[in-house]
Amino acid sequence: MLIDHLSIIGVGLIGGSLARALRKAKLVGRVTGCNRCEETLIKAVELDVIDDYTLDVAEAVKGADVIVIGTPLSVTEKLLPQIAEALETKTVLTDVGSAKGSVVNAARKTLGDQFPKFVPGHPIAGTEKSGVEASFAELFIGHRVILTPVEETCKKSHKLITDMWHAVGADVIDLDVAHHDEILAATSHLPHMLAFALVDCLANMQERDEIFKYAAGGFADFTRIASSNPDMWHDICFSNRDALLKTLEKFSEHIDQVKAAIESSDSDQLLKIFTRAKKVRDEFVHNREQLDTSKE
Amino acid sequence: MLIDHLSIIGVGLIGGSLARALRKAKLVGRVTGCNRCEETLIKAVELDVIDDYTLDVAEAVKGADVIVIGTPLSVTEKLLPQIAEALETKTVLTDVGSAKGSVVNAARKTLGDQFPKFVPGHPIAGTEKSGVEASFAELFIGHRVILTPVEETCKKSHKLITDMWHAVGADVIDLDVAHHDEILAATSHLPHMLAFALVDCLANMQERDEIFKYAAGGFADFTRIASSNPDMWHDICFSNRDALLKTLEKFSEHIDQVKAAIESSDSDQLLKIFTRAKKVRDEFVHNREQLDTSKE
Repeated sequence: MLIDHLSIIGVGLIGGSLARALRKAKLVGRVTGCNRCEETLIKAVELDVIDDYTLDVAEAVKGADVIVIGTPLSVTEKLLPQIAEALETKTVLTDVGSAKGSVVNAARKTLGDQFPKFVPGHPIAGTEKSGVEASFAELFIGHRVILTPVEETCKKSHKLITDMWHAVGADVIDLDVAHHDEILAATSHLPHMLAFALVDCLANMQERDEIFKYAAGGFADFTRIASSNPDMWHDICFSNRDALLKTLEKFSEHIDQVKAAIESSDSDQLLKIFTRAKKVRDEFVHNREQLDTSKE
Repeated sequence: MLIDHLSIIGVGLIGGSLARALRKAKLVGRVTGCNRCEETLIKAVELDVIDDYTLDVAEAVKGADVIVIGTPLSVTEKLLPQIAEALETKTVLTDVGSAKGSVVNAARKTLGDQFPKFVPGHPIAGTEKSGVEASFAELFIGHRVILTPVEETCKKSHKLITDMWHAVGADVIDLDVAHHDEILAATSHLPHMLAFALVDCLANMQERDEIFKYAAGGFADFTRIASSNPDMWHDICFSNRDALLKTLEKFSEHIDQVKAAIESSDSDQLLKIFTRAKKVRDEFVHNREQLDTSKE
């Protein structure tokens, strides 16, 4: 048994899928769920995602070998003091937040002596759907999980969390906290901002109804991430504020270049931008396919 | 036989798929292909997309009952005078360009008395792939084709082109030229600009290799349209310049609102934008699914 007693605080898509995968692999003994909303927990028991539940964070923390915090980032920061109070020395703590700097800072402040047992993590998996009903055991297979251990992080705890993600099929990679936040600002947080802003922008136009009537498959793909959970993304924006603002600034400069090229009829410049983008995007897809093939 | 002799000028994804679909439905007699590049035409004969070919535009025009111009917009405008010279009175002409104002203006100028036989069209179908090799007969099934007939357009020609698209499985809708260009600027041209600009922006960043290494499925979907044909999109930008610039401006204001909300920690405003966007995007997907179900 890899983990005798696992507690999941925030039983949603990620926490639920992790619990399902570990149970399926018979690598976990008991799984306790903890959530603000009891309905979700009853559902999670019915779906056989967890064994038992509690609405009390301290209760969930007590006796757990591993605690996975699967809540939105702002909730995580609020819960950390309560977790710290009940935390036992044997317990290893990890999270799944999409930004790492803010949560590492908060954990360093609140966990004190126990901070080395916190292994910050971020599974690069998920869909635009959320909630325990959307969870499934295969979610992490072939996906990357980034861990951002810091100097203080205990080696043994780090290894346990690495093993846990490996066990559910993920590729586990370690990254520096700030580096993680910069890269994710570019590849994930910025595209989400663009998708949300685009849909909201079109929805505000006069021709709104016709716009959505004539939108096709390309638009559906492009805006898929605008169906993501608003609360979660609100938290990510503020948690990764600096890196995100820097990236947004760079993007604005870039879209201004496109605009300027169209305005000034700079045919060469426009074609150069599109051609470079297509080349890089085609390479990206090619590399992803290579990766998939090499896994078979 | 709906069309005895069809000529396709520009045998690519759209022209090739249309020829395949009409042949499959046995609604066309002879199909002649015309292209700048002979290799493409040889390939198209091999793939059984066309019966015969010519490299000479006048040759392709002569004797055709229907001519479909499937070239990028800038090429269409260059070819119109050559087409006009060889055009017979029996021939109906249509195109498949993604912007309609510029091509309608060019056709009005060059076609003279024959202008009423030109039925401007835009099939909202296609993938990020291009070329006759990517063509397939089912491309238009369930997709919208927008026709933008003007006052002068001959009713009989309009009906023939409508019947042609119906016959290959498309929903045919008429729109005003300017209205088409505004709506497409919003739903298609703007998202393409954002996707191209995003990929090029990230490719210029220092962490470029790592950025693409950690990009996941959401990023792949979001940037799919950045793999589109750069020449074609270059032409669309200039053909739909005014509507596109107006839409780009509106989007910039919108993304600035997102930026300002993050900068000033305006939690409510950010959550409002995301929540509105999610609601509208979810509705859009729901309506698409309803449409698909009602077709079954």
